[in-house]
Parts: sequence; C-alpha cells; structure tokens
Amino acid sequence: MYNELLTPAVIIDLDIVERNIENMVELNKQYNIKHRPHIKAHKSIYFAQEQLRRGCVGITCAKLTEAEVMVEHGIKDILIAFPTIGKAKLERLGALIDRADIMNMINSIEGAIGLSELGVRMGKKLKTLIEVDGGINRGGIMPGEPTLEFAKKVKDLSGLDICGLLYYGGTIYGENTEKGIIEKTKMESKELLETQKLLNDNGFNITILSTGSSYSARMAKYLEGVTEVRAGNYIFNDGSTLWPGLVKEEDCALRILSTVVSKPDKYTAIIDAGTKTLTSDTGSFTKGYGYVVDHPEITIYKLNEEHGFMISEEPNDLKVGDVIEIIPNHACVIPNLNDTVYGVRDGEVEVSIPVDARGKNI
Amino acid sequence: MYNELLTPAVIIDLDIVERNIENMVELNKQYNIKHRPHIKAHKSIYFAQEQLRRGCVGITCAKLTEAEVMVEHGIKDILIAFPTIGKAKLERLGALIDRADIMNMINSIEGAIGLSELGVRMGKKLKTLIEVDGGINRGGIMPGEPTLEFAKKVKDLSGLDICGLLYYGGTIYGENTEKGIIEKTKMESKELLETQKLLNDNGFNITILSTGSSYSARMAKYLEGVTEVRAGNYIFNDGSTLWPGLVKEEDCALRILSTVVSKPDKYTAIIDAGTKTLTSDTGSFTKGYGYVVDHPEITIYKLNEEHGFMISEEPNDLKVGDVIEIIPNHACVIPNLNDTVYGVRDGEVEVSIPVDARGKNI
Repeated sequence: MYNELLTPAVIIDLDIVERNIENMVELNKQYNIKHRPHIKAHKSIYFAQEQLRRGCVGITCAKLTEAEVMVEHGIKDILIAFPTIGKAKLERLGALIDRADIMNMINSIEGAIGLSELGVRMGKKLKTLIEVDGGINRGGIMPGEPTLEFAKKVKDLSGLDICGLLYYGGTIYGENTEKGIIEKTKMESKELLETQKLLNDNGFNITILSTGSSYSARMAKYLEGVTEVRAGNYIFNDGSTLWPGLVKEEDCALRILSTVVSKPDKYTAIIDAGTKTLTSDTGSFTKGYGYVVDHPEITIYKLNEEHGFMISEEPNDLKVGDVIEIIPNHACVIPNLNDTVYGVRDGEVEVSIPVDARGKNI
Repeated sequence: MYNELLTPAVIIDLDIVERNIENMVELNKQYNIKHRPHIKAHKSIYFAQEQLRRGCVGITCAKLTEAEVMVEHGIKDILIAFPTIGKAKLERLGALIDRADIMNMINSIEGAIGLSELGVRMGKKLKTLIEVDGGINRGGIMPGEPTLEFAKKVKDLSGLDICGLLYYGGTIYGENTEKGIIEKTKMESKELLETQKLLNDNGFNITILSTGSSYSARMAKYLEGVTEVRAGNYIFNDGSTLWPGLVKEEDCALRILSTVVSKPDKYTAIIDAGTKTLTSDTGSFTKGYGYVVDHPEITIYKLNEEHGFMISEEPNDLKVGDVIEIIPNHACVIPNLNDTVYGVRDGEVEVSIPVDARGKNI
C-alpha cells in the first residue's frame, strides 16, 4: 500500500476528509451557523476549495501571508483571525483588501488605530471583529463590560466597521468528557450573546458572532446565537480528538507513513519520523508522540529530530523495513512541514497536494 | 533595527557564525580531529559553504534528500548519518553515489544487506560506518563485543567497505556541569577506541572514528583517537548551550524577531511567534520556549500555533508593536520552518539566505 511513497510521507484519506467537511457543514447548518473553516490546519488551496465546494461560506486564515496565498489562488472571502500590527503589515493588508473581501480582528487600541488609519487611507470602513477573551488570556478583551468599554474607545475610529465579536475558547481542549465539552460550549455561546446584547443595547450593531474550536463546533446545538464557526482541525482529526473519544480511528484522515529503520532490542523500534516530521507537540490526553495504527501496544516515547523511538511492554514483531501509519497528536502542524501531502483513496495515491501556504507565518 | 523585516523573522548574525565555525575548526585541529559539520541545523548551501571555506573537511547530512540538495549545489564530500532502508531509497542513494563521495552508516543486518546489494550492483565497495550505541538506544550496536559480532556478520558482504565507527552520545545533553560533560566526552572516546581496537585486532581496518555533539566537540581535548566530529548546533548556539553556561549570549547567532501583538494585562504580552515559528521543543535546562534578549525577567510560558504567551512576575513595560529578539531553546529546528533566513551584521541585514534543504525529511 502506497509503495511508491518514500517515507516519512503525509497521506490524507480523501473519503474521510470529504465526509468530515460535509458532516461539519451539515451539523452547523441545522442550527443556522455558517462554517468558515480555519485553513491553518492544511494550508492548501486544494482543501480550501473542497471546503468551499461543500458549503463553507469562506475561510479563516491565521496570518496575513496565508491569506495572501489564498487570494492569489482566487479565494476571496477571508477572516484573518490574528491582529495585524505595524505599518509594513498594514500596507500589505491594504493591498489584499483591494483584491478580496477581508474581515479583520482587533484586541488592542493600538491595533484598532492602525487598522482604522488604513481604512481612512483606503476611503472605506474595514469590517472588524473585536476579540473577546475565551478564557486563555491570549489577547481578547474580557467579555461583558470590558468589551463594551473597549468598543466605546474604538467606536469613533472612522476607518472601522465594528460588526462582530471573535472568540476562541481554548480551555475546551482541557475537557475530555461530553459533559465538560458541552458546558464549555454553552459558555462560549453565553459570553458572546451577553456581550453582543450589551454592545447592541449601547448603540453598536454586532451581527457576527464568530467562535470555533473543533470541539465546540461538534456541539453546534449548544452554540445558540453564534453565526459562524471557524473549526479547522476537524478536517483531519488527530490524537486531540481521538484520545478523548470525540472521533474514531476511521475519522482520522491524516496519517504519517514511516519506516522502521533500526531495531535495537526486541521491545524497541526506531522509525524515520522525528520532530521534523511529527513535531514535539503533545496533547492533553494523548500518550507519547502519536498513535500507531494497528499497534495500540506501542508507544512513541521519544523523538529526536529525525528519529522516532517506539517501545512496547512485551516484545514486538516490528522489523527493519516495516512501514507503519501514525495518527499524530496534532494534525494542524504536520502539513506545514511539507511541500506536498498525498491524497489517497481506497489505498491508492490519487493526487499530490501542494501545501501552498506552508511556512507562511507572517 | 531590521525595520525592513516583517515578523516573525529569523535573523542570523554572520560575525557570530563565522567566529563559531572558526573556533570549532581550530579547536579540533589542535587535537588532529577533522570537523565534518552536521548541516541539519541550517539546511543551507550558504552556511555549508562557509563551513567548508573555513576548514571543515566535508559535511554530515541527516537524510538522503538533504544530501541530494547539497550535491546539487556542488558539495561532494558527505556523510549520511542515518540508515538508508528500502529499495526505493537505495536506488536514489545510488544516483547520489554516482555523483559524489558519500559515506554511509549501518546499524542492522537488513540495512547492511541492502547497502551491500547496491554496492554490488554499482560495482564498488561503499564506504560504510557501523553505528555504535552512544547510550540512548537509538539503533546503534552496543560498543565492544556486540559491535564485533555485528561486524563479523557483515564482513563478507562484498558491496561494503567497513571503514569506521559512528557514535552519537546523546546523553551528554543531560549534563550541565563542565565535569559531567567532560566525563561523557571521555566515555565517547573510550568506547570508540576500545571498539576500534577490538575490531582491528580481529582483522578489520577501522580508520574513521566519527562522533559529535555540540557539547563534546567543545571538549576536543578529551576526544582521544576520534578522527572526525559532526557537531552541528554550535554554528548558531541556542538555549541548550546558553542555559548550562557553555556559551554566552553573544555566541548565539540565531534569533527570532517577533512583535508584541496584544497586551491582555500588565504582566502578560502576546507575540506573533508560536509553535510554527519556535516549535514546541523544550530543553533539559531551558525555561519556557526561548530566552527573550534584554528581558531576562520575562518567560515565554506557553505557545499556540501562531501565538507566544509571555509573562513576568512584576508588571512589564512591553507594549503592542514592540519588537523583541528571542534565542530559541533549539536552533536546529528553526530554519527548517522557513524558506529564508536573514544574515545580519552590525545591525543591518546583509543577505537573504535560502534554507535550501528545508523540509527534506526523506
């Protein structure tokens, strides 16, 4: 299977990807929520277009340069979910706004002033969401009164059209029970709705409530009032959704093919995938550095840059030359390490997929 | 300073790099040790050529595809310090051996047979080092008798010229005192010398003893008998050498420029460098995810993919838009995330340096 691929290689099952997208779009549509997927997970035009074709309303980018790549390839409805700070970046943002329908976010006065000045220079009001803190103190303004106070301070900046709130409830990834995840999902909705009401009661016109993690977006039923979800990871799934039981192995589209390159003893096997393939990312509920498909008895207990160290309690029958499949702890960081990933279907490589925005971190 | 660079950006001080290379070459030359630097740290033709120009005898590559890039650009004396396993990779290795002077390594019978078959097909004996375990059970054969036993098993493979031993003493990175590092360095030398003697007493002709970490290569005085060191990290230095006091801040050539993008409270600042810039790598003796130059009071306590979370015990005076410099925990994984790094001198950008072998993990 996939004999033509040299390892390590990233394979992505297209049937699973297509099902994951359709399920996410359909689920959210039931509750009148639009899906604007975060493309940081795949950084590829191919998958972004698959998402748009299957009902997504636009995309979310992590950085300005990711958005540039997407616009270059004809994708025009984009939320940049990161503050654009500094004159040079604002100039580049301006060039992008000239060519596409870009939504921005702010979480500081400095950021708001810079963006507004850009809007004024361009002679338009830039569509802007205020980031509301989702519990991880990542730069969002605290929900409720603090957000109202912030909104009042930026209200008169004439280059901005403050039209929505942006929220990332990152603490949800610390939950591994359905009950805990539902509670956090309800909190996302509650904090956004209350803050929206407060602002609109004070003369604002907040119509977009954007939230999203690949946990809460699965619980769309509890996202009352939310208008858009930005889930990104769900397209592949990984250890972060597999270990807490949110998905099954057959929902995990992205795997790393790796070869056993040495067998120092009967318990240990060394593979050709290290931190430059799998990254050092661990997860709240994952074990080691990835899940070895068909070998639940084996743990990837350590990584060097080019070596993965696997061990089992009983002797294992892996031998030099064997090829294994790994579901990584965190899929979103894997395509970024590659120029190309391989789209597979029914055990055959169907398409080489360029990771167009690989490395775009600016 | 470096105002023209959008952040996050990787800057590399060329004066420091040149000094680091020259010091390493000179130090080892005093003890008759050649320096064959590991280019996995920089993955760039520019720096490989700087190393060769300043007295290195060749280079070490982590993977076949890294070596391909180097050969493509005219660098011809290469050790591939990773087992080449499987028919497809061996074929590509053959193409490379046709064009350059490649040294290989083996640590399994399967690997030895594959390599020998390639040599036979090519009508030549391939220069091959046996990997001796350096204490981390990464695939090397245990020093002494086990290596002799292994060598006897592969002796009659007619495609191989068994000419040396390869050793990576990874446990040395667990030491943070000069005494501990010297002890481990002496052990490298002792295990290699004893194993060499044992083999040569049994009819082998082992002339190359290759070792190397950026810790032990600084202790060349204690590397008796070693003929080549493969140190790689030393060209930049990073948290792994800075925190235990092996180098000073002014020896750290690679830094990440990053911008404060939000200031959620007076103790916290959020920067635009996360795991896709700094990686999740920690170090034995580092604190957080990097050392913030000029701000020893600040810790990078958490990373998301695009966000770095910084905190100080007392209120800090960082503000949105400020640009900081970070010395990463582990420099070797940073250039790999970028197409380009910036060579700087006296505070000015002198040259854009392509990371030619970025992402070459095969």
